[in-house]
Amino acid sequence: MAAAPEWRLDPLTGCRVLISPDRAERPRAIGPACPFCEGHESETPPEVLAYRSPGSSPNGPGWRVRVVPNRFAAVRLDAGEPAASATRAQTTPVADGPGSPGFGVAEVILECPQHETAFGKLSQSQATDVIQAWRDRLRLWRDDGRLAFAQVFKNEGPVAGASVEHCHSQLIGIPFVPPAVEDELRRIASGRCPYCDSNTRLSLTFVTESEYFLAMCPIAPRFPGETWVLPKEHAASFEMTPDEHLSDLVRILFDVLARMDRVFGQPDYNLIVRSAPFRHDGTWHWRIELLPRVTTTAGWEWGTGLLINTMFPEDAARLLRDAG
Amino acid sequence: MAAAPEWRLDPLTGCRVLISPDRAERPRAIGPACPFCEGHESETPPEVLAYRSPGSSPNGPGWRVRVVPNRFAAVRLDAGEPAASATRAQTTPVADGPGSPGFGVAEVILECPQHETAFGKLSQSQATDVIQAWRDRLRLWRDDGRLAFAQVFKNEGPVAGASVEHCHSQLIGIPFVPPAVEDELRRIASGRCPYCDSNTRLSLTFVTESEYFLAMCPIAPRFPGETWVLPKEHAASFEMTPDEHLSDLVRILFDVLARMDRVFGQPDYNLIVRSAPFRHDGTWHWRIELLPRVTTTAGWEWGTGLLINTMFPEDAARLLRDAG
Repeated sequence: MAAAPEWRLDPLTGCRVLISPDRAERPRAIGPACPFCEGHESETPPEVLAYRSPGSSPNGPGWRVRVVPNRFAAVRLDAGEPAASATRAQTTPVADGPGSPGFGVAEVILECPQHETAFGKLSQSQATDVIQAWRDRLRLWRDDGRLAFAQVFKNEGPVAGASVEHCHSQLIGIPFVPPAVEDELRRIASGRCPYCDSNTRLSLTFVTESEYFLAMCPIAPRFPGETWVLPKEHAASFEMTPDEHLSDLVRILFDVLARMDRVFGQPDYNLIVRSAPFRHDGTWHWRIELLPRVTTTAGWEWGTGLLINTMFPEDAARLLRDAG
Repeated sequence: MAAAPEWRLDPLTGCRVLISPDRAERPRAIGPACPFCEGHESETPPEVLAYRSPGSSPNGPGWRVRVVPNRFAAVRLDAGEPAASATRAQTTPVADGPGSPGFGVAEVILECPQHETAFGKLSQSQATDVIQAWRDRLRLWRDDGRLAFAQVFKNEGPVAGASVEHCHSQLIGIPFVPPAVEDELRRIASGRCPYCDSNTRLSLTFVTESEYFLAMCPIAPRFPGETWVLPKEHAASFEMTPDEHLSDLVRILFDVLARMDRVFGQPDYNLIVRSAPFRHDGTWHWRIELLPRVTTTAGWEWGTGLLINTMFPEDAARLLRDAG
C-alpha cells in the first residue's frame, strides 16, 4: 500500500487536490479476466452490501448487485482523524510539510454479475437494484455521522475515466463539503427553488419526462448534450427517494441515454448524483447529471477555469427531443 | 459560419461556459494534407504576423513563425459589443434568452514551416521565435485596449485537446478577467510575493533552474508531474520579458519537457502562459504551467470540482530532478 492520501490546497490559486498514490496502482481490466464478474468475488475486498438470491453466501456467486470497498481508494477511513478544517491551507505555495489527511470512504458498486459494459443495456430490474444500492449506501453513510458529503458517480468508457469496463459506479465520501457545492448552496439559498418552476416543461431546454421525473439541458452545459434528470417534486436528498420512484427513475435515465446514443454516437459519459450535503440547511433540489464526453478540456480550460462548449443547450435539447 | 458565440452563466452552479458552434466545424488534420505546413498558406486566413526571410511575400512560403486568425474561433471581434458586464448572469437556471456575446480574439501561432509535431523538437532558434511571437501578440492586444485578458496556451497531442498535430499554439483574448484569475489576484494581493521567496531553490518541489528562470512542481498539482517555470526576478507580465531572456526561457522549457518525456513516457501536455490581466493592480508573478495529461478527469472531478492526483509534488520533483 502506498503513502496515505492527503489534501493539498494552493493558497493562491485556490486549487484543491487530493493526492492519492494508491490510485496509480489500479489495474485496467478489459475482457475475460474481469475482477468484477460473478465467480471472481475473491479478487475484490469483501462485500459491504449485496442483493443476493436466497441461500447464496456472502462473497460467492448468486448476487445481483454487490458493493465493495475500493481496493485503490482515493480516501481511507484509516488516513487519520479529520482536522477541524479538513482542508487546512498550506501557508505558502511551496511545499512546507504534509497537507490534511485524506480521510473518507471509497466504495465500488458492481452493477451486474454478467460482463456487461453499458449501464443502459442492463435490464430494468438490474438498473433499479443499482440505483437502490446508491440510495442505501448514501443513507448508511449519512447516518454514520463521520462524513459531511458523498458523491455517487459513474464513469462509462475510457474517455470518461473508467479503468475497468465492467459496469460499475462509485461512492466517495469526505468529511467536508466541496467548495463548489457550498457555493451552489449559498446561491440557491435566497428565494424559492428555481427548478420547481412549473414552466420548465415549456422551456427551450426541456427534453422529456416520466411520471416522477423530468430531463432538461442546463443553461450552461459543460459538454454538448449535457442533460440533467430532476424529480418533479422538490426534494433535497437523492437518498430519500422512495422505493416506488426507483424504477421510474431508471425508465427516464434509459430513455435519455438512448437518445444520447442516437444523437452523439454512443458517447462515453459521466453520471453524477448531485444531492445535498448530509447536514444541509437551505434549499436544494437533487439531480442526476449526464455528461457525454464528446469534447476534451485543453489549455484554455485549465488556464482560465472557463469552459468552451460547441453546442447551445437549446439545440442539444431539440436534437434529444427529436431522438425520442 | 455558425451562430455567433455566447457566454452562458448558470446562476446557481456558477458554471460559466462559452458556447461556440464554430468550434465544432474544425478539422482534425493529421499527416501530409496539413494546412499548417509551408506552401499551404492559402488554407488559413491571411497572416497577422510573420517572421520571414528577407524578400519573401506575406501569405507565401519563406516564414519561420506565422500567426493567423483562428478560422474556427471560440470568440470573435464581430460577435457584438461587450456589455458593461460581459458575463451577465442568466436570471434563472432555465434558458430565458440569449447570453452575452462571445466578443474577443482567437489566433493560432504556426510554430514552424516543416511538419514537426513536438515543440520540444524544434530548434532552439525556432522555439525562441515562437515565444517572441506569443510576447509580441500579447503586447499588441494589451495596447489595443478592447480586451481585459488573454490566454496563450498550447495543446500538444490529442489527449491534451489538439485537433491539428502540426506544432501550434493559441491566443484567446476576452473583454473580462476570468473569475479564477481574479480570485488568484485577490489572494496574492495581500503581502509580499510568495514566489519570490529565495528558499524555493531549497524546497522539496524544486526541479531545475537556468540563468533567469526556475522550475518547480506546484503545491497542489492537477496532474502527476505538473511543473511551473517562473522568472527568478519578480515580473507580473510575460509580455514584458526582454529579448535577452527569451532563449534562456526556451532552454529551461526544453530541459523540463525532456525530463517529463523521460519520466512519463512522452505524455501529451498543455502549456499555459499564466500572465497578469492587461490592466492589473496588485502583485502577480507570471509563470508557464506544464500539465502532462497522464490521467483523466472523471465523475468525481466534474461532480465536486475537486481533483485527484496520484503523485505527490515532492515525489514528482524528485523524479524530474533525477531525470536531468
